Amino acid sequence: MTETLAQSYLDEVRWNNDGLVPVIAQDHETNDVLMVAWMNTEALALTVKEQRAVYWSRSRQKLWRKGEESGHVQLIKDIRLDCDEDVIILKIEQLGGIACHTGRRSCFYRRLENNQWQIVEKVIKDPEHIYSK
Amino acid sequence: MTETLAQSYLDEVRWNNDGLVPVIAQDHETNDVLMVAWMNTEALALTVKEQRAVYWSRSRQKLWRKGEESGHVQLIKDIRLDCDEDVIILKIEQLGGIACHTGRRSCFYRRLENNQWQIVEKVIKDPEHIYSK
Repeated sequence: MTETLAQSYLDEVRWNNDGLVPVIAQDHETNDVLMVAWMNTEALALTVKEQRAVYWSRSRQKLWRKGEESGHVQLIKDIRLDCDEDVIILKIEQLGGIACHTGRRSCFYRRLENNQWQIVEKVIKDPEHIYSK
Repeated sequence: MTETLAQSYLDEVRWNNDGLVPVIAQDHETNDVLMVAWMNTEALALTVKEQRAVYWSRSRQKLWRKGEESGHVQLIKDIRLDCDEDVIILKIEQLGGIACHTGRRSCFYRRLENNQWQIVEKVIKDPEHIYSK
């Protein structure tokens, strides 16, 4: 009974045909969008339970605790759902200040200028130093 | 020749199997995420050309100039692309201060509280008054 009630928020999400929803990770202080990833029901349930972002990796087809290799864990401050129930926002504290696998703060480091995508954010840490242990 | 060069930024976007990418509309001043919609190549090209948000409506299967009925046009301030080239952010000025079809400022008006989605943003304008003319 408790289990059923506890899971109801998962049922209100409109998962796509692959059982996924896109998730926007947003800095809880600056509101900057840091990255977009995907979740299945298990990832969302674990995110809520552990209060850290857990995504579904489409390329690796497995759960992915953000920061499990890099240490760049995302601590949950707030979780939002949109009017169509098919997109989620996580407001997070980004440990290490780096969300992108390129070593940048945000994945959205390219800006359209004169019909060209220009890199406008610097690399904070070389990815080789992020992922090598 | 000019045409080819001008279109190259469109080719760098990784459109999904339906020829679409998700697009985050973000208030250019507060950084609040107001909504998420979809674009095809034509929608992005028109957005850049007209400097207002033009989306692809998946439900209606046609181009959708945001605000064409409601007047809630989104003026473009900045366009960003992420590291995987499969998500776009528009930083916009939201005319009318309402992005959501429910008459709220943002589509992300539900917050997860005690395992329930709670509405935490008020309706600014009754949708009946937004869409009736």
